[in-house]
Amino acid sequence: MVERIDQDLRGGWSPSRAELPPHALRWLGERIGLRPGRTPAVPDTALEVGASALTDAARDALAEVVGQGCVRVDRASRLGHAGGLSYVDLVRYRAGGELVVPDGVVLPATPEQVVAVLEVCVEHDLAVVPFGGGTSVVGGVSALRGDKAAVVALDLGGLDRLVSVDPVSRVAVLQAGVTAPEAERLLAPHGLTVGHVPQSFERATIGGFAATRSAGQASSGYGRFEDLVEGVRLATPRGEWRLGAAPASAAGPDLRELVVGSEGAFGVITEVSLRVRPKPVLERYEGFFVDGWEAGSAIVRALAQQRVLADVTRLSDEDETDVSLALSGGAKSTALRAYLKARGVRRPCMLVLGWHAGSKRELKARRAATLALVRGAVRLGTPLGETWRHGRFNGPRQRDVLLDVGVCVETLETATHWSRLTGLRDAVREAVRDALGRTVVMCHISHAYETGASLYFTVLAARDADDPVGQWQVAKAAASEAITGVGTISHHHAVGVDHAPYLEAEIGALGVDVLAAVKRALDPTGVLNPGKLIASEPFRG
Amino acid sequence: MVERIDQDLRGGWSPSRAELPPHALRWLGERIGLRPGRTPAVPDTALEVGASALTDAARDALAEVVGQGCVRVDRASRLGHAGGLSYVDLVRYRAGGELVVPDGVVLPATPEQVVAVLEVCVEHDLAVVPFGGGTSVVGGVSALRGDKAAVVALDLGGLDRLVSVDPVSRVAVLQAGVTAPEAERLLAPHGLTVGHVPQSFERATIGGFAATRSAGQASSGYGRFEDLVEGVRLATPRGEWRLGAAPASAAGPDLRELVVGSEGAFGVITEVSLRVRPKPVLERYEGFFVDGWEAGSAIVRALAQQRVLADVTRLSDEDETDVSLALSGGAKSTALRAYLKARGVRRPCMLVLGWHAGSKRELKARRAATLALVRGAVRLGTPLGETWRHGRFNGPRQRDVLLDVGVCVETLETATHWSRLTGLRDAVREAVRDALGRTVVMCHISHAYETGASLYFTVLAARDADDPVGQWQVAKAAASEAITGVGTISHHHAVGVDHAPYLEAEIGALGVDVLAAVKRALDPTGVLNPGKLIASEPFRG
Repeated sequence: MVERIDQDLRGGWSPSRAELPPHALRWLGERIGLRPGRTPAVPDTALEVGASALTDAARDALAEVVGQGCVRVDRASRLGHAGGLSYVDLVRYRAGGELVVPDGVVLPATPEQVVAVLEVCVEHDLAVVPFGGGTSVVGGVSALRGDKAAVVALDLGGLDRLVSVDPVSRVAVLQAGVTAPEAERLLAPHGLTVGHVPQSFERATIGGFAATRSAGQASSGYGRFEDLVEGVRLATPRGEWRLGAAPASAAGPDLRELVVGSEGAFGVITEVSLRVRPKPVLERYEGFFVDGWEAGSAIVRALAQQRVLADVTRLSDEDETDVSLALSGGAKSTALRAYLKARGVRRPCMLVLGWHAGSKRELKARRAATLALVRGAVRLGTPLGETWRHGRFNGPRQRDVLLDVGVCVETLETATHWSRLTGLRDAVREAVRDALGRTVVMCHISHAYETGASLYFTVLAARDADDPVGQWQVAKAAASEAITGVGTISHHHAVGVDHAPYLEAEIGALGVDVLAAVKRALDPTGVLNPGKLIASEPFRG
Repeated sequence: MVERIDQDLRGGWSPSRAELPPHALRWLGERIGLRPGRTPAVPDTALEVGASALTDAARDALAEVVGQGCVRVDRASRLGHAGGLSYVDLVRYRAGGELVVPDGVVLPATPEQVVAVLEVCVEHDLAVVPFGGGTSVVGGVSALRGDKAAVVALDLGGLDRLVSVDPVSRVAVLQAGVTAPEAERLLAPHGLTVGHVPQSFERATIGGFAATRSAGQASSGYGRFEDLVEGVRLATPRGEWRLGAAPASAAGPDLRELVVGSEGAFGVITEVSLRVRPKPVLERYEGFFVDGWEAGSAIVRALAQQRVLADVTRLSDEDETDVSLALSGGAKSTALRAYLKARGVRRPCMLVLGWHAGSKRELKARRAATLALVRGAVRLGTPLGETWRHGRFNGPRQRDVLLDVGVCVETLETATHWSRLTGLRDAVREAVRDALGRTVVMCHISHAYETGASLYFTVLAARDADDPVGQWQVAKAAASEAITGVGTISHHHAVGVDHAPYLEAEIGALGVDVLAAVKRALDPTGVLNPGKLIASEPFRG
């Protein structure tokens, strides 16, 4: 829908010059009762930003570490770090709720500076919010100050180096602020790739991936981000902590797994040692249509359990497929439906498979092994696969366009074991529909394991103009209640603020106690990212 | 060498009726200066066992939970739980050092009883040592009491049930006391397998595997034990803790990874949810000889990095291969050496590859993918592979036989990244030789990863009759110093008592603080397995 990438100050994608085609608007009117009208983004000048609570003494102390120019208290810098990219964040940026703006932005250039900044934060009673690409959709970079006098965003963009490459061991050390595209650019001369491609690829950072246990579109092949992490360098208020002596170890609990997913609450990840792979020579994406969710998920399960998953394996349910077809235009979509029906596919579910390979021979062998289990599917070939690949980072832009015309649009995700998967999908759909009324709830599997899979939901409803934040929070709470006790509250979006109230149900009161004990050990005064991960601060409202 | 399995009271393998063949004794004389003579195991009656420090009140309280018959203070029960199976443990059992004997043995039958037993232990100031198969080789089940009034071994043998099987998700819940062979027997009617086959297979338990981050001989195919763990049920002095909502999650740090490897110091694992797989229809093992360690490790690295490892992948270095050939007998071994030399293999390194498959077709495809990268090796075929398979659990028995004739024989292991692997192997060999004088140090890779591999050393020397424990401790310390800073102090044997002094160098002072904080959160009075994992108690001497 949208071709260009415009970045606004806070790191989102500007929808300014993009418009929904008329047939899409008609379809939204029919399906969710959307009424014509536009509610475009407001100019930044319309947003309210209070005075900075940063004292001169704190500012000077920070400047002593990072330099005068790297402590910012101007309006634009502060607004640019006032939250992430959740629907609620975006609504707030559209003056639909109160923005939480940090008192300043600090831009360190080295891991040592990050340690020194944390010392200053402890001394001057400053909360510190680690900020990478700012793409959190769960409030992970919300500028909460907890019980501190002020809050600064710690923008890690200056930690942008490839520190080292060990081509024999295939390990690369990257600094936390390196974005995913930049990581690929830095590794390309070595013939290597990280292979981590989430929808936030264009802006998200290595440190952010590690802090949130990110999963990418090709994680079936390359592994979740935590699977890539060989070691971490963490800045804490108690000094530096380095982990990662070996690829695997029985020397006690794996503490890397405690840092990965710690969301800036235990420390600031400054460097990550990553398992890297040779850059693939070939990539091939193909599209298929399967008759119904049950048949489709059975295929994905077989692929996972026989360990012949494609590197990208993505199954859309009937509703998500239906929306794709509807939005791709009338005549073309009608013809395709007829074509599929004639081949026995009455409830089309789109399946995209993609392989990365180092040679034609490898591609052929792996593709054959996968396709041997893709039975009863209608193959649409590489054009459909390439269409998916072409648009695979467009979600955030499409969302901005939908926001412009008054849609409530948000995603949520979970994972569970295979035997509970369809039941959980149905329960979440029902919960969201009950909460929102006329709504479209789409779902896909994008990450499959031998024992289960993820479920990723996209929700569309007509936005409540009076209380858009409250409208979504009711739906989100209903979905979260449906998930609790059956699956995980987050498969790859992390906890942040939004999921913190549900964490105890998942990991138990003892689990929360353990996290709190670890936090106290590393961050005794609690300066690090208050209110995230552990719900010790009140839920933002 | 030894065909039968005799179990003595404490769970070891009795060497009573086995003897070393004359050519092996001659070889040991030549290589390590072993002098003829026998130092057989002493009868249990010769061992000193002090009075139990368990008070009547404590005994009654324990009996109230588990029943009178399941609280044992007799000599045989206590001796049977007085340590694990390290060389030093065995030497002590041979009256070569002071045995640490628990004051009693408690045998719970359910997870609920374990929780209640821990409550009693807190109330009556009892240290509690969780005891599965008792096969720890690092002092993990040593009956240390720390600062407590008495110490009980908590024998989990009564937790022997397969709790549930989810064949769709391929998840099985097994109780902690189920031994590896019993797990296979329980899963066989479902057509499933755990696939975890360490050398301790015959006696070790599911709970022990999880508590120590075990790796098995087929872990290249099935994964390390922590890779199999979907969920855990843990009894702690603060109540039960259950983890494992989904196959993968971004809901904060992965706390399962904190329980796995916690060695009974955070809680007692009572149940484990495991990813299981269909029982293979075919298994094939083949033996190869490669010319030199460098060529061999390059092959294993290629297999790991191209992701075509056999399920069992095992490379012996020149010395280990040499010992195998020497002990297998004169004429046969001379002929084999000549055969290999004629084919360019002057420094033979044995490579064993094994595949498990669900069909002939799968076996063929996987074997072909592996063998395409096994270049320059002389193939000895399935007889050599089967010889390895046949003897693969014999290590402990061979050790007992060697102990009988006065050999100091022990193993140690580590892992590091590929670029450091050979350097670390050389450093450990040198350190051990410097410490022990005339010695044989053998090494093999048994676990390979994309970024590195394990190194497993077997050491043979003539036993110092006066101070056998001290003799080994000097060598172990030298090896541990060589490992520290280069690799992990343990790849699959865990920390226990023996590695606790080296843990801080590996995970940092902050890492030890974090472990201590977690322990305090779950075990505030410190009843659980004192002196293990965290070196808060003095090193046993």
